[in-house]
Amino acid sequence: MVFKIKQINPVCSEIWEKPNLELLQKFKNPDTEIYISTIKEGPEEISCAYDGAKAINYALEEAEKAQSEGFNAVAMSCFLDVGLDAMREILDIPVVGACQAALHLASLLGTKISIITSNKNGGTIRAIEDLVNKYGFKSKLASIRKVNLTPLQFAVEKQKLKKELLVEAKKAIREDKADVIILGCSGMNVAPWLQEQINIPVVDPLIAVIKILEVLGKMHLSHSKLAYPKP
Amino acid sequence: MVFKIKQINPVCSEIWEKPNLELLQKFKNPDTEIYISTIKEGPEEISCAYDGAKAINYALEEAEKAQSEGFNAVAMSCFLDVGLDAMREILDIPVVGACQAALHLASLLGTKISIITSNKNGGTIRAIEDLVNKYGFKSKLASIRKVNLTPLQFAVEKQKLKKELLVEAKKAIREDKADVIILGCSGMNVAPWLQEQINIPVVDPLIAVIKILEVLGKMHLSHSKLAYPKP
Amino acid sequence: MVFKIKQINPVCSEIWEKPNLELLQKFKNPDTEIYISTIKEGPEEISCAYDGAKAINYALEEAEKAQSEGFNAVAMSCFLDVGLDAMREILDIPVVGACQAALHLASLLGTKISIITSNKNGGTIRAIEDLVNKYGFKSKLASIRKVNLTPLQFAVEKQKLKKELLVEAKKAIREDKADVIILGCSGMNVAPWLQEQINIPVVDPLIAVIKILEVLGKMHLSHSKLAYPKP
Amino acid sequence: MVFKIKQINPVCSEIWEKPNLELLQKFKNPDTEIYISTIKEGPEEISCAYDGAKAINYALEEAEKAQSEGFNAVAMSCFLDVGLDAMREILDIPVVGACQAALHLASLLGTKISIITSNKNGGTIRAIEDLVNKYGFKSKLASIRKVNLTPLQFAVEKQKLKKELLVEAKKAIREDKADVIILGCSGMNVAPWLQEQINIPVVDPLIAVIKILEVLGKMHLSHSKLAYPKP
Amino acid sequence: MVFKIKQINPVCSEIWEKPNLELLQKFKNPDTEIYISTIKEGPEEISCAYDGAKAINYALEEAEKAQSEGFNAVAMSCFLDVGLDAMREILDIPVVGACQAALHLASLLGTKISIITSNKNGGTIRAIEDLVNKYGFKSKLASIRKVNLTPLQFAVEKQKLKKELLVEAKKAIREDKADVIILGCSGMNVAPWLQEQINIPVVDPLIAVIKILEVLGKMHLSHSKLAYPKP
Amino acid sequence: MVFKIKQINPVCSEIWEKPNLELLQKFKNPDTEIYISTIKEGPEEISCAYDGAKAINYALEEAEKAQSEGFNAVAMSCFLDVGLDAMREILDIPVVGACQAALHLASLLGTKISIITSNKNGGTIRAIEDLVNKYGFKSKLASIRKVNLTPLQFAVEKQKLKKELLVEAKKAIREDKADVIILGCSGMNVAPWLQEQINIPVVDPLIAVIKILEVLGKMHLSHSKLAYPKP
Repeated sequence: MVFKIKQINPVCSEIWEKPNLELLQKFKNPDTEIYISTIKEGPEEISCAYDGAKAINYALEEAEKAQSEGFNAVAMSCFLDVGLDAMREILDIPVVGACQAALHLASLLGTKISIITSNKNGGTIRAIEDLVNKYGFKSKLASIRKVNLTPLQFAVEKQKLKKELLVEAKKAIREDKADVIILGCSGMNVAPWLQEQINIPVVDPLIAVIKILEVLGKMHLSHSKLAYPKP
Repeated sequence: MVFKIKQINPVCSEIWEKPNLELLQKFKNPDTEIYISTIKEGPEEISCAYDGAKAINYALEEAEKAQSEGFNAVAMSCFLDVGLDAMREILDIPVVGACQAALHLASLLGTKISIITSNKNGGTIRAIEDLVNKYGFKSKLASIRKVNLTPLQFAVEKQKLKKELLVEAKKAIREDKADVIILGCSGMNVAPWLQEQINIPVVDPLIAVIKILEVLGKMHLSHSKLAYPKP
Repeated sequence: MVFKIKQINPVCSEIWEKPNLELLQKFKNPDTEIYISTIKEGPEEISCAYDGAKAINYALEEAEKAQSEGFNAVAMSCFLDVGLDAMREILDIPVVGACQAALHLASLLGTKISIITSNKNGGTIRAIEDLVNKYGFKSKLASIRKVNLTPLQFAVEKQKLKKELLVEAKKAIREDKADVIILGCSGMNVAPWLQEQINIPVVDPLIAVIKILEVLGKMHLSHSKLAYPKP
Repeated sequence: MVFKIKQINPVCSEIWEKPNLELLQKFKNPDTEIYISTIKEGPEEISCAYDGAKAINYALEEAEKAQSEGFNAVAMSCFLDVGLDAMREILDIPVVGACQAALHLASLLGTKISIITSNKNGGTIRAIEDLVNKYGFKSKLASIRKVNLTPLQFAVEKQKLKKELLVEAKKAIREDKADVIILGCSGMNVAPWLQEQINIPVVDPLIAVIKILEVLGKMHLSHSKLAYPKP
Repeated sequence: MVFKIKQINPVCSEIWEKPNLELLQKFKNPDTEIYISTIKEGPEEISCAYDGAKAINYALEEAEKAQSEGFNAVAMSCFLDVGLDAMREILDIPVVGACQAALHLASLLGTKISIITSNKNGGTIRAIEDLVNKYGFKSKLASIRKVNLTPLQFAVEKQKLKKELLVEAKKAIREDKADVIILGCSGMNVAPWLQEQINIPVVDPLIAVIKILEVLGKMHLSHSKLAYPKP
Repeated sequence: MVFKIKQINPVCSEIWEKPNLELLQKFKNPDTEIYISTIKEGPEEISCAYDGAKAINYALEEAEKAQSEGFNAVAMSCFLDVGLDAMREILDIPVVGACQAALHLASLLGTKISIITSNKNGGTIRAIEDLVNKYGFKSKLASIRKVNLTPLQFAVEKQKLKKELLVEAKKAIREDKADVIILGCSGMNVAPWLQEQINIPVVDPLIAVIKILEVLGKMHLSHSKLAYPKP
């Protein structure tokens, strides 16, 4: 039986669609089908609460029709989990956020998590801290670090991205005592490479959210409608 | 010198404009001018994350132009603090949320806070808990209770509202050990009356947000642009 | 490619082997093979720290040889996660505990978790509280409740188990405000049935640990050897 | 209607009276009248629990008679909030502490607070940490730093104070990630100047306590007599 | 070698001196000598912050001269630990509070602590909660309960005290899930009796503070002068 | 009356027996008798969860028969508190762990605790952090540091141990703001010497556990059988 996931990229740039699908092809279950929904209007990158607010309506519309379109699950693929609570309220099928999935997996693997994100906007760190706090992982957070690239640059400057990630990950281990790394953006796509370099688990949020949705699907689980009742 | 506050009611119902202004007339400073901005399109009430997501763009637009329109401060008057972080990022003038202001004032007055809100939607409680947690007051929360009325009904069924608030407030004191009450919606407008009945502080979130903005204005303070940098 | 999981039941009773395998047959991935290793000597049930201490050496031996036997992962299937840290230290392949997996999945689905466990021993609740605290989910715990049956009875008194679980789950929802339930023992095997009755997510720890291990396998992730270095 | 605040400086030095009044003149509401009550006997500066204990009786006497003297509110202006709980128990009119008011305002403005205090006594930091913890802001505390001056020197060595504050504030931002600063003594009186230099909010505890009392007065709020019942 | 403890009863009533000494005679080490110092002026009972503030100066004077009088340790015997931090600052010899000692011992014995105190004043509970929080035991607190007697009545109405303690202790166990009880006043003197009735540990704060001081004395330990430097 | 303590060294090396007894001779009460029980089989040192798991059965056997052998108390002398919960379940006489006792004493003396342990195994730090968290002292932990020696080396390289401890203790004070030190192994035996060098309290876990057991014995207290019921 096919398990259809609608992956919502809440940005109006299609630059990530092809690399996302290629990456996920290697990690998804055979019976999983992933459709990426890039929004029509809104920011090209999401780096702060303002970007998220600008993208939320289009993303929510995409989520809202997923159920009637026959999807079995929705993946909010942006690391800031834009509109996640609203989507969970309006939908019965499982909705999981990339940050949420990555934090839960990382928490299973180690004791001190470091997140390495983009440098687009200073508000990114505050926004990620809010999510870490909201999901209950504050006491496991070692640090939030940045590479000197924006999300859009991740797609085109892979070598620079790798180099900077390696520097920051090593600092996270040595200075912040991190023992697990989360890539703080779904557009980096280099977790396996980085893990090989530093020998501690590196969690890719995009892969994490897809794999967690597959688990929920197989276990017939979805978010609690007592916690997220229909509006 | 006049201090001009743009109060954003992120709903498309104008039912609260008149009672809001009448209420605030009694509490604001003489040199404060309040302009209520009701949004053009969106939900009539805000009771969950979904409602908030539907209202956020219009509310954000209203906030975004406030600075150029000559306002000195922005009050996000909905108790779910819709779009507050995004507004703080885009603006330099102080922006404060009704829930945020009410929690900080209540925390100054007692040790265990009970919030009494509407019964429109089961997600309201989860959304308020998220805010209490985000602002750091989880350890001071005694309970979140509900009256059997929706926000729109608050404006028209004052007697029923009072009766139910009194019942819940007394339970909050006796069963939850609350020593301060927050009205969990800016449309209730009966804090002074309730306070007289139960003899413990009752904080109205709408008055709270206006008074806190006046303090920030007088002290030349605004939210930190290091925490909320411009997008 | 086959993914071989060694499931360690740290008890010397084989009563759960057949129902465990039947249950997992419905939930595991097609390429997953599960071998249950029941220990030779030790307690028949695990209900407290003393039972765990009596079982830990045999369980650890079983884990220790898993890697050389060609296994790809180890599932500590007892809800008290007996010897989990020691196993993670000695092994490179992923080791996950049933309680650990269930808590992380439940945390993804709701905001207040209730665990319903056996009544064998009053120390069970303290031991589970310690695990909830250790994994960082104390603030999400609504309650720990008990049915009036011991683990061994779960395998034979299914009707009584269902009846009592239903009573406790309903109390957890109404009195403790739980919005997700975890079955507090891997031998209950009735999560899908209970979920249908109460309409909120019910997480089976045994299925959870197997599914999480499959995810880790597919993502090439294992517990951090910085956190759990080789002795 | 005049709002009369009794400001209790729990020291026997009158050196701060004039600068305090001059400073507050610029920030208070027009209808606010402030009377500073300097105690007759006791320490000249308050830098630790011992100083506080030596001053508490005189300060408490001053507070106790405030109500019968016709005051509408009491400001405990020392940053160690000497005798605050006792004053709240004995009085019905609002009593707020300088540290308490400053922390609540700072918490509204940013996410990580740094407090810069005097170097009179090593116990100052422990005493301030205790207050931060008591008021519930531990998770928002970035650091407590010191300038190389005692409280009494603040009144006479303004240039040195400014220079040292600037150094410490910059370190707080860069090293401790602070995004809001609180002056950790009511005798510094240079918040507006410092804020201009470092471009993040700087909260003066003396102004904060006066402004918060004005808000409570206007809103007819006082500390909860359920939490602080009459002895 | 004799170990001389000055026990400071910060009340001007001598009613407890004889029963205190009789009780301690059974529990102290043979080489311990206890001198009770009842203050000359101040409240007869301590039930809230106001009482504490009224007693602190006399108590602090008594502590201050203890070192020169040849004492080896100071016991602050009031359960509200009046002036403890100030005494620790001024003294090098160990100073421990009754509440502090009782909480640390109770924490060693169980997982959920219930404190049963007097009903003199509603502020007692808030004051005890503040201490529990300050010493870091909030997550272990099951409840604070009251008997219907004031501290002074404890000395004369032993039967009523016992009867009410038994009722409250049983409720603490059944309703609050307490597994350790602390007597919330140093004047109750019935811990061994109560422990026999309810079969869980009952910690007497007066005995606790004396025994802990003896341990510190034998181990040549005192409070850290880095945390409590000399004023 | 003699108070007989069975001290369980859960290692099969007898190297510590003589120095342990010599050390304790100076600190124990006159009526205390200490019998050291070194296990027959198992690890020579305990530095991680794996070592603990290997030692737990022998240690538990030793504890289990203590009561029938006439002992009045059991001291789990390893700093990782191996099998402590299981021992408490099976025994009525008081059982205390060295880490548990040291943390409770240190918490009485200062506000920020640094633990200095061996460098045998990277997992030691994770294991100690888990204990600090379990006993509720996470917010008081300044740091966990290591000397460049294994536990077995402590017994023979006293000079190197002292030198390295001094370096790390000074760093703990200066860099981590520690104001109390705990020796993170019961085989160091140099607390009084170190305390003299650094002038802040240094807690030896072995002495701590013996002294705490003496207190419990004198007060007729033991761990709560509600929290640790008989299996």
